[in-house]
Amino acid sequence: MTAQPDTPAKDARRILISVDAMGGDNGAGAVIAGMAMSAEKNPDIGYILHGPRAELEPLVARRAGLSERIHAWHDVSEVVTMEDKPSHVVRHGSGTSMWSAIDSVRDGQAKAAVSCGNTGALMAISTIRLRRLPGVNRPAIAILWPSRNPQGFNVMLDVGADVRADARDLLQFALMGASYARNGMDLPRPRIGLLNVGTEEHKGRPELKEAHALISQYTETGRFDFVGFVEGSDLPGNTADVIVTDGFTGNVAIKTGEGTANLITDLLREAFKFSILSRIAALLALPSLGRLRKRVDPRRVNGGVFLGLNGTVVKSHGKADAIGVSAAIKLAFQLAQSGFAEKLAARVASVGEHAQNDAELPGKAADVHNEGQA
Amino acid sequence: MTAQPDTPAKDARRILISVDAMGGDNGAGAVIAGMAMSAEKNPDIGYILHGPRAELEPLVARRAGLSERIHAWHDVSEVVTMEDKPSHVVRHGSGTSMWSAIDSVRDGQAKAAVSCGNTGALMAISTIRLRRLPGVNRPAIAILWPSRNPQGFNVMLDVGADVRADARDLLQFALMGASYARNGMDLPRPRIGLLNVGTEEHKGRPELKEAHALISQYTETGRFDFVGFVEGSDLPGNTADVIVTDGFTGNVAIKTGEGTANLITDLLREAFKFSILSRIAALLALPSLGRLRKRVDPRRVNGGVFLGLNGTVVKSHGKADAIGVSAAIKLAFQLAQSGFAEKLAARVASVGEHAQNDAELPGKAADVHNEGQA
Repeated sequence: MTAQPDTPAKDARRILISVDAMGGDNGAGAVIAGMAMSAEKNPDIGYILHGPRAELEPLVARRAGLSERIHAWHDVSEVVTMEDKPSHVVRHGSGTSMWSAIDSVRDGQAKAAVSCGNTGALMAISTIRLRRLPGVNRPAIAILWPSRNPQGFNVMLDVGADVRADARDLLQFALMGASYARNGMDLPRPRIGLLNVGTEEHKGRPELKEAHALISQYTETGRFDFVGFVEGSDLPGNTADVIVTDGFTGNVAIKTGEGTANLITDLLREAFKFSILSRIAALLALPSLGRLRKRVDPRRVNGGVFLGLNGTVVKSHGKADAIGVSAAIKLAFQLAQSGFAEKLAARVASVGEHAQNDAELPGKAADVHNEGQA
Repeated sequence: MTAQPDTPAKDARRILISVDAMGGDNGAGAVIAGMAMSAEKNPDIGYILHGPRAELEPLVARRAGLSERIHAWHDVSEVVTMEDKPSHVVRHGSGTSMWSAIDSVRDGQAKAAVSCGNTGALMAISTIRLRRLPGVNRPAIAILWPSRNPQGFNVMLDVGADVRADARDLLQFALMGASYARNGMDLPRPRIGLLNVGTEEHKGRPELKEAHALISQYTETGRFDFVGFVEGSDLPGNTADVIVTDGFTGNVAIKTGEGTANLITDLLREAFKFSILSRIAALLALPSLGRLRKRVDPRRVNGGVFLGLNGTVVKSHGKADAIGVSAAIKLAFQLAQSGFAEKLAARVASVGEHAQNDAELPGKAADVHNEGQA
């Protein structure tokens, strides 16, 4: 747009995002539309596209300029459905668009992958194909949640529905979440909170008390501030930038919050349909409501990031429309551009070494890491 | 209001509610104001009031007609604070207004107790003073949550921050929640859902799968429909009338939902302050917003009910104002009037017997219970 003219040939400087076109609730059309939207806004994005080419090609052809941004097609016919069990997909899913999309990251062709499909299957495939970072026991999914923070959002992890997390896992989540907040939200020293049913130190499950003690020791190594226990009300609050919890609790919390927000929005719409006067009021209120919507629209912060793997995977909401898919692609691009995967790996590794060599002096280790915003 | 004239003397037919005037965030003033509000609306409510009489008497005197509704004063000077540990209160709290309020239920003077104080302490005192119903291992706190149901609310339990619940506890919650929905919401056959991270039967923690199997067996005995696993998004939805979960998850879920609802409300207010046009729109929109507020105002459904004890205890929100306290008193009155405590006890006992004698034929036992809406 500014100095560089549009290049008609494929631009080798582009950052390539691997996109699974299939498996979302709104079909491939929404994914292709989101790809076109992102491509239009950002000349540095290129795609590797996965799915049945005969079905996708007409959809792509309809979007001006999109075809030129697709650097490679992977013509795969099988699709992971929302009903497929992760264990089944891991054994029989190698012919699916999801598997193919992850393999493009594994092979180094793409810097990050995006899928709207089955979360459990995506995590299972990502884990076996990309493998965990050394030192990470349990990969996590981090999301952004509208909040009263200056940046407008908090990070929460894990929301991945994993059934358990011990104190060590929660420490890893804190370290990975801090790294994500630094790279994704530009916070040099994020505030970490540990989700509990009260802020007093005697409250909660035994593993939470243990995690509290453990995370406190790693504030210098992990370059974060630890605000201690936080409650559900702090998730949309301004107490912490990163909220750490197990995947079960996190999953229930975001779905409850999301459902409640949707209920309020729907009731607001109903309230404005009540009378002729309220309909006129609604017309006048449209810009105000638009500002509100923009602020809390979950589509604009669409994208759960998988943390703890050798590569960046962004899980878009299954119900995402074009705007949602575009937001997920933008997030994948930002993380790829910042070299997040490499920084996170370095961060986790350094803490692993620190834990082995220097557990008694957590403060000292901070000085030896100078890889920047990891 | 209709046939009966106001009686100047204390009316013996009144249902007495025991009120802890102390320990709420807004002080005794909010509690007394809420008592006055309830008394004015409902001539059948009488009070037993607990707290330092010298402090409370001037507050009561300011409310016309309230003094006449107070059937007994318990002049106690100590107060349970929000910081007090439940274990400490159980040992040293016998001189507090909270303890005294529960003892009025224990002694049969009052039909139900209401407190705005420390939840953990209130549960601990209630449990040791009122004791558990035979067959109940873990008492639970049930709340109402705005939803898309015809009745406008779902019941969720447990939200009491208890750290664990096994399959047997979750079954008890289902039975108690069904009984509460029948008596508190007039639903002859409530739909019960078990909170999980997905609706597929293979998902979630082991105790949830076990509870799923167990609850399925008790639909006839407990007179409810079991809709199986539900997700966080179903809490404000129309899938179930009663959502069963452990106290940790429930507590995090409601605080997240509440916090998110508050954030949206505040942002809505901000959005309407943006420009002169939006301020005019806000004026016109006031009735619509008022309707919305009325529908989701947490003060109007204020009151966590303790289930599984020999007596009814309603925990009002610590931040409750007069409207909130009045709603909690109204709920306590309704439950007392319906004979809920006795019906719940009969229901739990009958299931206990059934489980011992007749575990293989859960359907048969339903016919032998004819104590009405228990």
